[in-house]
Amino acid sequence: MDMHGRYQNIAISDIFSDRNKLGLWEGVELAVLKADAEVTGDEARISAFSEIAEIWLKNSIDIEWWKARDREIHHDYNAFLDERLRHLPVHLQAFVHPNITSYDGEEPAFASMLSSAIEFVFEALYAKLDETLANLAVKYRYTIMNARTHGQEAELQTFGARCLAWLKEIRVAHDALLTAKPNISYSKISGAIGKYGSINPDMEKAALQILELKPFYGATQIMPRILYAAVAEALCGLVLVIDKIATDIRLNARSGRPLMREPFAKKQKGSSAMPHKKNPIQLEQLEGMGRMAKGYVSMIVDNIKTWEERAIEQSCVERVAWPDLFHVTCHSILVLKNVLSGLVVYPDNMLREIRDSRGVYASSEAKEFLKERLVHYGFGYEDAYRIVQLACFNVFAPSDRWTVLRESLPGSYEKADEILYDVSFLKEESVGSIRESISLAELFYTDELEISMAQVDSYNVCLKDLFGDEKILEEWQKLFEPSFLLRHENTLYKEILGIE
Amino acid sequence: MDMHGRYQNIAISDIFSDRNKLGLWEGVELAVLKADAEVTGDEARISAFSEIAEIWLKNSIDIEWWKARDREIHHDYNAFLDERLRHLPVHLQAFVHPNITSYDGEEPAFASMLSSAIEFVFEALYAKLDETLANLAVKYRYTIMNARTHGQEAELQTFGARCLAWLKEIRVAHDALLTAKPNISYSKISGAIGKYGSINPDMEKAALQILELKPFYGATQIMPRILYAAVAEALCGLVLVIDKIATDIRLNARSGRPLMREPFAKKQKGSSAMPHKKNPIQLEQLEGMGRMAKGYVSMIVDNIKTWEERAIEQSCVERVAWPDLFHVTCHSILVLKNVLSGLVVYPDNMLREIRDSRGVYASSEAKEFLKERLVHYGFGYEDAYRIVQLACFNVFAPSDRWTVLRESLPGSYEKADEILYDVSFLKEESVGSIRESISLAELFYTDELEISMAQVDSYNVCLKDLFGDEKILEEWQKLFEPSFLLRHENTLYKEILGIE
Amino acid sequence: MDMHGRYQNIAISDIFSDRNKLGLWEGVELAVLKADAEVTGDEARISAFSEIAEIWLKNSIDIEWWKARDREIHHDYNAFLDERLRHLPVHLQAFVHPNITSYDGEEPAFASMLSSAIEFVFEALYAKLDETLANLAVKYRYTIMNARTHGQEAELQTFGARCLAWLKEIRVAHDALLTAKPNISYSKISGAIGKYGSINPDMEKAALQILELKPFYGATQIMPRILYAAVAEALCGLVLVIDKIATDIRLNARSGRPLMREPFAKKQKGSSAMPHKKNPIQLEQLEGMGRMAKGYVSMIVDNIKTWEERAIEQSCVERVAWPDLFHVTCHSILVLKNVLSGLVVYPDNMLREIRDSRGVYASSEAKEFLKERLVHYGFGYEDAYRIVQLACFNVFAPSDRWTVLRESLPGSYEKADEILYDVSFLKEESVGSIRESISLAELFYTDELEISMAQVDSYNVCLKDLFGDEKILEEWQKLFEPSFLLRHENTLYKEILGIE
Amino acid sequence: MDMHGRYQNIAISDIFSDRNKLGLWEGVELAVLKADAEVTGDEARISAFSEIAEIWLKNSIDIEWWKARDREIHHDYNAFLDERLRHLPVHLQAFVHPNITSYDGEEPAFASMLSSAIEFVFEALYAKLDETLANLAVKYRYTIMNARTHGQEAELQTFGARCLAWLKEIRVAHDALLTAKPNISYSKISGAIGKYGSINPDMEKAALQILELKPFYGATQIMPRILYAAVAEALCGLVLVIDKIATDIRLNARSGRPLMREPFAKKQKGSSAMPHKKNPIQLEQLEGMGRMAKGYVSMIVDNIKTWEERAIEQSCVERVAWPDLFHVTCHSILVLKNVLSGLVVYPDNMLREIRDSRGVYASSEAKEFLKERLVHYGFGYEDAYRIVQLACFNVFAPSDRWTVLRESLPGSYEKADEILYDVSFLKEESVGSIRESISLAELFYTDELEISMAQVDSYNVCLKDLFGDEKILEEWQKLFEPSFLLRHENTLYKEILGIE
Repeated sequence: MDMHGRYQNIAISDIFSDRNKLGLWEGVELAVLKADAEVTGDEARISAFSEIAEIWLKNSIDIEWWKARDREIHHDYNAFLDERLRHLPVHLQAFVHPNITSYDGEEPAFASMLSSAIEFVFEALYAKLDETLANLAVKYRYTIMNARTHGQEAELQTFGARCLAWLKEIRVAHDALLTAKPNISYSKISGAIGKYGSINPDMEKAALQILELKPFYGATQIMPRILYAAVAEALCGLVLVIDKIATDIRLNARSGRPLMREPFAKKQKGSSAMPHKKNPIQLEQLEGMGRMAKGYVSMIVDNIKTWEERAIEQSCVERVAWPDLFHVTCHSILVLKNVLSGLVVYPDNMLREIRDSRGVYASSEAKEFLKERLVHYGFGYEDAYRIVQLACFNVFAPSDRWTVLRESLPGSYEKADEILYDVSFLKEESVGSIRESISLAELFYTDELEISMAQVDSYNVCLKDLFGDEKILEEWQKLFEPSFLLRHENTLYKEILGIE
Repeated sequence: MDMHGRYQNIAISDIFSDRNKLGLWEGVELAVLKADAEVTGDEARISAFSEIAEIWLKNSIDIEWWKARDREIHHDYNAFLDERLRHLPVHLQAFVHPNITSYDGEEPAFASMLSSAIEFVFEALYAKLDETLANLAVKYRYTIMNARTHGQEAELQTFGARCLAWLKEIRVAHDALLTAKPNISYSKISGAIGKYGSINPDMEKAALQILELKPFYGATQIMPRILYAAVAEALCGLVLVIDKIATDIRLNARSGRPLMREPFAKKQKGSSAMPHKKNPIQLEQLEGMGRMAKGYVSMIVDNIKTWEERAIEQSCVERVAWPDLFHVTCHSILVLKNVLSGLVVYPDNMLREIRDSRGVYASSEAKEFLKERLVHYGFGYEDAYRIVQLACFNVFAPSDRWTVLRESLPGSYEKADEILYDVSFLKEESVGSIRESISLAELFYTDELEISMAQVDSYNVCLKDLFGDEKILEEWQKLFEPSFLLRHENTLYKEILGIE
Repeated sequence: MDMHGRYQNIAISDIFSDRNKLGLWEGVELAVLKADAEVTGDEARISAFSEIAEIWLKNSIDIEWWKARDREIHHDYNAFLDERLRHLPVHLQAFVHPNITSYDGEEPAFASMLSSAIEFVFEALYAKLDETLANLAVKYRYTIMNARTHGQEAELQTFGARCLAWLKEIRVAHDALLTAKPNISYSKISGAIGKYGSINPDMEKAALQILELKPFYGATQIMPRILYAAVAEALCGLVLVIDKIATDIRLNARSGRPLMREPFAKKQKGSSAMPHKKNPIQLEQLEGMGRMAKGYVSMIVDNIKTWEERAIEQSCVERVAWPDLFHVTCHSILVLKNVLSGLVVYPDNMLREIRDSRGVYASSEAKEFLKERLVHYGFGYEDAYRIVQLACFNVFAPSDRWTVLRESLPGSYEKADEILYDVSFLKEESVGSIRESISLAELFYTDELEISMAQVDSYNVCLKDLFGDEKILEEWQKLFEPSFLLRHENTLYKEILGIE
Repeated sequence: MDMHGRYQNIAISDIFSDRNKLGLWEGVELAVLKADAEVTGDEARISAFSEIAEIWLKNSIDIEWWKARDREIHHDYNAFLDERLRHLPVHLQAFVHPNITSYDGEEPAFASMLSSAIEFVFEALYAKLDETLANLAVKYRYTIMNARTHGQEAELQTFGARCLAWLKEIRVAHDALLTAKPNISYSKISGAIGKYGSINPDMEKAALQILELKPFYGATQIMPRILYAAVAEALCGLVLVIDKIATDIRLNARSGRPLMREPFAKKQKGSSAMPHKKNPIQLEQLEGMGRMAKGYVSMIVDNIKTWEERAIEQSCVERVAWPDLFHVTCHSILVLKNVLSGLVVYPDNMLREIRDSRGVYASSEAKEFLKERLVHYGFGYEDAYRIVQLACFNVFAPSDRWTVLRESLPGSYEKADEILYDVSFLKEESVGSIRESISLAELFYTDELEISMAQVDSYNVCLKDLFGDEKILEEWQKLFEPSFLLRHENTLYKEILGIE
């Protein structure tokens, strides 16, 4: 067992268990015997196959015997053969493992393990994550929030639309895995150096078909690991997308005015010291999973290189990194799924945030609006930009009382006591908006921008004139309404979820 | 020239330039001649050294000639020798490059380049970053803010104390570089396989001494790259610590209630679309630098492996990754230095945040306080914890009006318009504190916790009794004062900055 | 310019140059104007588009002006817009960059750059590598050599068949790139947060179509980087496969009995110290390229993570890592192509090696042969294995004279002189083969194996009997013939090259 | 348990076991109580400490209870506290975990675990590896072999001297670990954000002293991970140096003419198909270990970054990557140690290789020799180089018979049969040496070099004259003697092992 119990997935452990692996090896050996019998049509081989299959069915593999034997001969596949051979009479032994090499058994078995694990990722887990995100997108289709670029409030969006963006990232990661999957539909039973020797290529084809695999022509003793690297990279991509989504939620879960947070159980404790804590520990763990996934992929990618017709440095890496990467992937999917299913969303705080952002969410629309309409006043692109920029900076100027607090730093802990006491009684100024400051032509000078007082005045004059027109004012105010700003989100719902 | 112009450092480019490298090669060749003359005491060698040194001084290296020759013979050091030899009469040529191999010139030169670059990191740049952080720590020694763990408001701290923690991380990274530096004080002039052949080890020692280096006994044709990996890792560590600090500032620069932000120039534009944006683009770039540094280190660490007495796969990697890693390091230091020097800090918002966090910053102290005092009421560790937890959850319970907004989602864009309009008129509830809710015994039931109404009542009864005692109430209130909570920060100032 | 001149590819530098990038930005801006005009059918826009397009065509972009402006406003795309706007009268300015954001220009341009670079990898370079390998496979179709697993001589193969295995690895890497390519056929012109605002999704579709791209629904301000990571990983996979092939050749180029080596120019110098050297410096460089490629990919993969609707940490990484990764890829392809085109192959040494490997290349066939035929003597699977193993160990037992040299170590340098002198006169023993030692029943005891003398005797008795049969002896000898052992290589030629 | 059983080290598993960890947590809690009692001198605390210590000693930690509790409250340290608290009467509970936070327990415990693991690496394992290499160096001090650069035979060395170079790499890696070790001698008990709150810094100092640790002033809730990254990098460096050494041995173990190989047990099987195989599977595994180590380090280095006063993404990574990195390190040390202890060395093959390399091992000395002496003939540096180069290329020219085999490729498998048959009877030409070809002036033209026949002739004329002098010939022949070439290896033995 590889992965730490906390992050382990039982199904993955089973797939990569010794028991499963040895069972798969037996499957390959039997497929080879069967295919050999079929391709040659040889009577002796046909009956030998039946006899061997029957004996092996009756005598299940003794894992402990196998381990002991391996310690003795330092070759796990030979030890497995010895375990199987010991149940056969001498005349049947001659039919076993004919012309093939241990990796003719290992490789198809390994491809099967990878296939099963990928199927598990797809079927058992993945579908639900897609569904959960789609449901969230529908649920919050009209729940407005500020989008953020660079961590700064940007334009308005709905939380539903953000869920759609997350969903699309997951789908890209999913598609990458889907695209990589055919790589493991190939394998090889072509002998010690992959050039067949006395192995009939038709036998290989038939045996692999029994195992639901296809021959890869051009293998050496092993399959080229470039085929498998793509699978690992796709898994890691999925984990990293999950980490990206988790990070977004963590950012929105920052206390003060949290927009959402992961579920917190009734008996849960956030901290041994601070009883108030509701920490996003599941989301944070997902970042750790991303770090682990990258590490495992680097191990697996290094396996692309081997000497000539192969050396065995890849073996230990694959024994560890593959199951661990799958554990990390499955755990990540499950954790995100759980967080999203129980996600606590605060639309009230989203509204507070929009209100307090003072209309800047429409600064882009405002700039476009003015860009067109100020042409007649001889103002160009740059002026429209600067007017809105100035208005935005203006509306965040603090009141005098708060300005003092901003500019004078306390010089002792006692002074800090005092200030904190004062602040507890200090009222917040009422919140303005660029909607008004521009339409009322109330721009004022600030040294934050390279602008002269005269220029500010000229802007105000112009704005006063412009917004004297009632119709223009009406159009202007529309710019700040969600129904106007979000009207094209419908396209996303249609294109991504197929709903109107 | 390697690194993209935007992130390039001129001093680093000079150090790793062809011109500088060839100059260093010449320096090694001359040091060898001089040391050889000295060690042997041979008259012919002594005078040959003087003659050669004089001729080379007069005939500076022709970089273009060298490049053309290199293209012809596919060996850059031989091409360099040819360039130098062409200025010498035949009788002097016989003295040049005696018994040594090209890497006897390359290695000391390389060590010198690394040394110069590290010195540059230390002297020209680093000292100022340390100083800037120390100054910030002093300036904001009494400026209080909420610390955050898991992105959640935790206990109170000063911004100065956070600067001290940043400073210490920088110092750890600095010390790692200091510790790795001796690794490049060694080099080798021990021949094609490092076993000397006809090279006198005394000559090596003398020549390296001229170059301010020491012999590494046990080299092959080259120095083992394990020595240099430590330097790269230390540089990367520094970049990653810078990235960590940058991330902290970015987190605090999130709009809404920014606590600090990077400087924004008067003519700067944050976005082509949204004039209101002041994006932390320098800080974000530092995260990119961290990603790059890790990549370059992975390249350099891979160089530890080479076949037997060396192969040359490391050469191209070192030509690219070392200068680029130094560019990234220097750029990161400079950018952080600039950001910190011009850091815009909002102590007013820090105060707002503390106020609005409703006293939970002292939840740990509160719990300890109750833990001791509730023993007499038969309440244990767990009860003290749960009382404070309950109070903390209580004080964040929204008012009815906001609860409605939290719980009912709009079903259309038009409904979203309406709600946003309503919210613009909605008053914020006044902000309570656990200081009062506990001392006034005003705990109330919430389904967020596994607790019964009866238990809440019993807690209130007990609290009412406890805080009936005036002296206890006074002690209690002290717990929420900065001067009480931060009194031990003095230790940090003393231990880290040496000031009282 | 990014990559070091030695490893730079001019075509890649052009694609990622400022000139090309700004040209592509202009292309996007024009496509937007055109699409906007078309979608709206607005007369003013239609004529504005024409006028603007004409003016911009006449006034090419002034890169220096742009750079200076960027330094002033700290926003490269805005600086580009300013450069373009300055050529327009005010009334036309209002039409420029309508509702869109800088990354609506950057992203399609970036996708185009990646596309061009990938096309260059495919068309200009890749095809020739495939062809060169295919030609080698045909040329050496019947040139026999020992395959090696674990660096040990394994079965027989032709050098042509090894070329086929290399070719297939290249093709897998090629297919991965082909599979990833559609990822960059998508882009976005959907505004500052990817939710369109006042951008008509139909305009996006039309504009992207002009640029030969498709809309990615679900973008934020930028395209999700998970899309591009797959491209980088595919490029890196290609470089690592090239490194694997290069390593195989290096292993075969080891002096003593080289089987092949990279071309060595007539004026080339292998070493400044040792004139005899013909070093595989190009092949070794390819290992360095692999190390670099992995580093660049790690940088690019880290870019999958960004905050919310985007932050800009990915920008610096992409400016550096993408062109550099393409340089490394193209350089690797070209270098391997050159090495393979001029590959010096020594079939004589391949034959020497086979001869001196004493028939063990058929040990697998020999074991199978005995496995079947010894059943009648009561010997099983294990015995067949041990007989061949014993024979193999026997044939490599040194003669007495050499045994002494193996077992007695010199105790001084002078003694070493003596021994080396002696050896120069020492004859090599004649080379035996397991073909004879087994068929002549000449097995003898060795303490290398867990076997008794009695058992060895019983094997010899049995073998003597078995090979008394002339027909069996004849069959046996056939096992060692290339035409028998390699008969199935034809399948590889048919499946991989489509030739019989 | 993390690491796969095959690569697991029991001592490491114990150190990182839950049982050990919880024991260490208890140790920290008790140290805090003791230090608190001592620092305050408070009677109640002094007796509480004694009582608690006694109760906990009697009631050992119930791991299963703890696990169940953790599943309930999602906080492993709180669950541990609950487990410990349940044994205490209420009046003692109030003393437990005073003012501190869970990571005040976790961090010192973690530092202790790392310390123990590092000690284990040093004491139990490392010393023996150093000793083994030193012993090999002494044993093979006079056993000559060709050194190899670029995989090509270079100058002569002893195998002992190569062992010294390996030893020095190990020592550099060892020193890096030693240098990083002090980083884990620090820890913190400074509260939830590292600013102490009501924790007395004197108590921290005293408690850490009990735990044999020192306070790190400037911690947050946790120690900065930059401290630990250096330890991981040092461990990885050690593994990569081991991988480098393993690769050298693998290169020398290539069959044909193996110079050394790893031990092969008497019952061992190298391959299920090919009984003759003695594969260097342990050495190859060490390459896999290097790949794994790099992956784990990348995970750990990513942990340098955390938000503000900490988030918990590092926890899962550390639970997995640290023990696994230690397993990989210990396993690597043990495997290399075993291989080196049982290393099978073939001095006979080393001699064969030297003999067959035809004197080129002294090409550097030969060039120097001629460089000086040909001045009088008007030949310069370049000529000396070309003469030796030509001689080296000459001596490897094949005989006619072998030239045919080199230049004509078989066109069918049957033709290959024939050629292989012929070769089995083909004698090897006698082996020449540049010692003779130069001193006998027998250089001949080759189209491998840019040289004219006339020039070759002029060289021969000059050489004939030069070596007509008996004294010069005698000096010349000395150049090829091991005792001359290796005389300076003594310096290495003296400097590295301290022996004359």
